[in-house]
Amino acid sequence: MRMYDLIYKKKNGGKLTKEEIDFIVQGYTKGEIPDYQMSAFLMAVCLKGMDMEETTDLTLSMRDSGETLDMSKIDGVTVDKHSTGGVGDKTSLCLSAMVAACGVPVAKMSGRGLGHTGGTIDKLESIDGFSTSITPEEFFDHVNKNKFALMGQTADLAPADKKIYALRDVTATVDCIPLIASSIMSKKLASGAEAIVLDVKTGSGAFMKTLEDAVTLAEAMVKIGNNAGRETSAVITNMDQPLGRAVGNALEVIEAIDLLKGEGPEDLMDDCLALGSLMLIAGKVAKTKEEAEVMLKATITEKTALKKFADFVEAQGGDQEFVYNTDKFKKATLIDPVPSPVSGYVKSIRADEIGMCSLILGGGRETKESTIDLSVGLILQKKVGDRVEKGETLAYIHSNSKEKTEAAMERFLKAYSFSDEKPEPGKTILAFVAPDGKVTYN
Amino acid sequence: MRMYDLIYKKKNGGKLTKEEIDFIVQGYTKGEIPDYQMSAFLMAVCLKGMDMEETTDLTLSMRDSGETLDMSKIDGVTVDKHSTGGVGDKTSLCLSAMVAACGVPVAKMSGRGLGHTGGTIDKLESIDGFSTSITPEEFFDHVNKNKFALMGQTADLAPADKKIYALRDVTATVDCIPLIASSIMSKKLASGAEAIVLDVKTGSGAFMKTLEDAVTLAEAMVKIGNNAGRETSAVITNMDQPLGRAVGNALEVIEAIDLLKGEGPEDLMDDCLALGSLMLIAGKVAKTKEEAEVMLKATITEKTALKKFADFVEAQGGDQEFVYNTDKFKKATLIDPVPSPVSGYVKSIRADEIGMCSLILGGGRETKESTIDLSVGLILQKKVGDRVEKGETLAYIHSNSKEKTEAAMERFLKAYSFSDEKPEPGKTILAFVAPDGKVTYN
Repeated sequence: MRMYDLIYKKKNGGKLTKEEIDFIVQGYTKGEIPDYQMSAFLMAVCLKGMDMEETTDLTLSMRDSGETLDMSKIDGVTVDKHSTGGVGDKTSLCLSAMVAACGVPVAKMSGRGLGHTGGTIDKLESIDGFSTSITPEEFFDHVNKNKFALMGQTADLAPADKKIYALRDVTATVDCIPLIASSIMSKKLASGAEAIVLDVKTGSGAFMKTLEDAVTLAEAMVKIGNNAGRETSAVITNMDQPLGRAVGNALEVIEAIDLLKGEGPEDLMDDCLALGSLMLIAGKVAKTKEEAEVMLKATITEKTALKKFADFVEAQGGDQEFVYNTDKFKKATLIDPVPSPVSGYVKSIRADEIGMCSLILGGGRETKESTIDLSVGLILQKKVGDRVEKGETLAYIHSNSKEKTEAAMERFLKAYSFSDEKPEPGKTILAFVAPDGKVTYN
Repeated sequence: MRMYDLIYKKKNGGKLTKEEIDFIVQGYTKGEIPDYQMSAFLMAVCLKGMDMEETTDLTLSMRDSGETLDMSKIDGVTVDKHSTGGVGDKTSLCLSAMVAACGVPVAKMSGRGLGHTGGTIDKLESIDGFSTSITPEEFFDHVNKNKFALMGQTADLAPADKKIYALRDVTATVDCIPLIASSIMSKKLASGAEAIVLDVKTGSGAFMKTLEDAVTLAEAMVKIGNNAGRETSAVITNMDQPLGRAVGNALEVIEAIDLLKGEGPEDLMDDCLALGSLMLIAGKVAKTKEEAEVMLKATITEKTALKKFADFVEAQGGDQEFVYNTDKFKKATLIDPVPSPVSGYVKSIRADEIGMCSLILGGGRETKESTIDLSVGLILQKKVGDRVEKGETLAYIHSNSKEKTEAAMERFLKAYSFSDEKPEPGKTILAFVAPDGKVTYN
């Protein structure tokens, strides 16, 4: 088998066999296939596509390029949740506590990642003492005891994906559904959870700009997961404006804790209920969405999810007082209001631009070497559909530098657009994809 | 400007500006753009295309990546001829002599190249003493004195093309009309001739399998040449079977000399007249094809082209006795007939398979390091449309190794197909593309 012939085949729209895909993935991971052949191949895949069988084979081949985690030591059906990422997306934090409080084990592997804020691990490190440096044995023990634990992602899961992603990132071959689906699912399958629930974001602040693309991606991932023997379902959620009001690391943790106290924003709660329902069903503790929603809402009113979150923090070395008294989180030194330039209704908020504000303030990583300022970020006071008078506060910018505040403020105003008429409020939950592939629009 | 953005633009079918193309070509030539980005870009070009303006800009940028030759020291309008390559294509050898005999200066730069036989330089080295290692000054002197000289291609012409071609060759991005056209034309423009005549081959033994693709390629190259201020025209010729009867290095030189003696095969003569007419018109020594053909035919009957060729050989250190007595060429030790397996008419001869026979015999280069055996090759006795009886000789294989003869013979029989009915003879000359872009089918 020669890589040249496989590039040529895909360039001409041919379908690759499992053996051919294994040859490419394993050969590239081992360094036997050079970057320049792999990038030509990836571009051919972007422009000629891959069918479901090829995409599944690609996913499994990437999964099998390294270690896979065995979750059989955990009691119950472990359920993992993955979000394709959005601005203000702190869902993992509160959702995991709610689901764990319902008895479903949440064994979460997480990363730090690049972006407008840090990853889940970075965010949680805003709690004094919190650490994800635990061994797999401690991790399993914590899940069995507390139903909820978080471990930093080890380097050996799906190394093929890591290497291929790094190449895609510099060769403009990122936005390709078969490559995105196989990248996400190879890691999810390697990390061992028995069931997977996906949160596919769509809109201005998401990678998938249209609902149609988001559904296509969700369908592909659901099919791959179920083909690989893991019950997988998906929710398509709106990312046309940031989720909730807080964007930033500590600020998002505080908002997640607020939700567990019954004081969270409505769109974040909608997200938690939609994803949580699928997780309870996959975890075999609820039969229907309605039943699951009742259970999830009870974890808030009865404060069981808040208790679960506090226990989780303590188990991983963190100070649980942060959960009960969020004043303990380190605050930014400068908190400035952004006054509205006009009177009217908020028509749209470009989530990607708000993300850029957070990055400008120092809340995210531009390169792997960047240090994150956990205290900075934004709190939106007005969201789409809200009435605002000229001079009224649109948001507060939390910053540790006057220059950064000014730069962020300039950028911030580009994100908002206004209208004289009240716009129709958008839905948070747009569609579901069931394990059997059935799509239901909300 | 970032290469990432330019790859992304082309991937989405965008049109690149002259500045963007310069950035890519000069950046890659200098090593500032890595292979893996360039190969992703080339694949995007293959699948999304380039319009004529982009293709011209790409050509000029590659031309300007190194030295360009100044032919102003040569008297008259220098005309260069380029063939896209085919099996048994010895046209350059005899055509140059015919055109030079009509008074048009032929200043030819040539290469060795990889393929089923060597390049023009390799072929001519089968004449004792012949050398192309001359300085540019000697080269110009020879052309002014004799109207015909040949120089080995220096490394500094269009280095971008050399580097890009090497990458295309290993990333399955060769068969792409804008890339082929710009590769050929960048070298032709850098080598300085004032007018260019192109021989674009089509058929089983050519790179362009269909007449439509060949015409598209020819039109692109003609437009680029004229856009760059060089009068350029093209002939589309048939390569559904080998050209002439001889395939191999010395064997092809002998056939070219035979043509100059009035004893050449008809298809080779057709090729020489079609290309030669365009060259005489471009060189301003004839006004019409008819006038040019009369002049070209006279160089054969009056033996002025044969004399011109002998003078050319002598001027470059060769023994001109080889021209008048072709028995002086070194012969292969084994000359074996290939008997026909059936009776019937020759229906087709796969030129690419005949080329492979020559390569098997040692007549070509598989890698840059291969040594060529100049004496080996094939002489076809039967061509398409010829009647043959079972056991009658289809061809003679000239070889220096029994094993290679056997391997070549096995391959040879795969190239021929037969029918009971006499097939329509194919035309040699299929179409012309005039400098103004007008296409005339023959």
